[in-house]
Amino acid sequence: MILEVAILTIKSGLSGEFETAFRKASPIIASMPGYLSHDLKKCVEVDDRYLLLVRWETLEAHTIGFRQSPDYQTWKQRLHCFYDPFPVVEHYTEILG
Amino acid sequence: MILEVAILTIKSGLSGEFETAFRKASPIIASMPGYLSHDLKKCVEVDDRYLLLVRWETLEAHTIGFRQSPDYQTWKQRLHCFYDPFPVVEHYTEILG
Repeated sequence: MILEVAILTIKSGLSGEFETAFRKASPIIASMPGYLSHDLKKCVEVDDRYLLLVRWETLEAHTIGFRQSPDYQTWKQRLHCFYDPFPVVEHYTEILG
Repeated sequence: MILEVAILTIKSGLSGEFETAFRKASPIIASMPGYLSHDLKKCVEVDDRYLLLVRWETLEAHTIGFRQSPDYQTWKQRLHCFYDPFPVVEHYTEILG
């Protein structure tokens, strides 16, 4: 299992709209081959900051399967407009429970 | 449930020692009141980078209960020497599954 991790900084004042847009866009990512589950969490300390965690079967399910799919264009169109700056996305492997 | 999130950057070349020290220190955090579970994950893209996720019943279980406990001094002593820079720790609340 690979964990995709992105800290999302949302343009000031747009968090409510972002949450609605994310809810609508969620079925896109959830329908991808190799997708396992995801969580969107809201930061306690910093306004307009979120943490996106997506569990994938493999790294390539995200970096190739999802990002090169036609559906990724819809995902981008619905969500990328909220980010400032554009998030750094990293992947993590489990080592210790 | 509150998720504690810390991206840990380990001094170059000390990742193996850090993993061993983390394994030994884990029972300290796991014995705290309000602790639910934790994961330590290793970054795919960046050497010597880890993600620590700790689930707590409440924010205060971490920020007060753990950090003000005598055991926190042992945790610090075993692990803080590996970090450079010292990590920013944030907390996240669940909003969307």
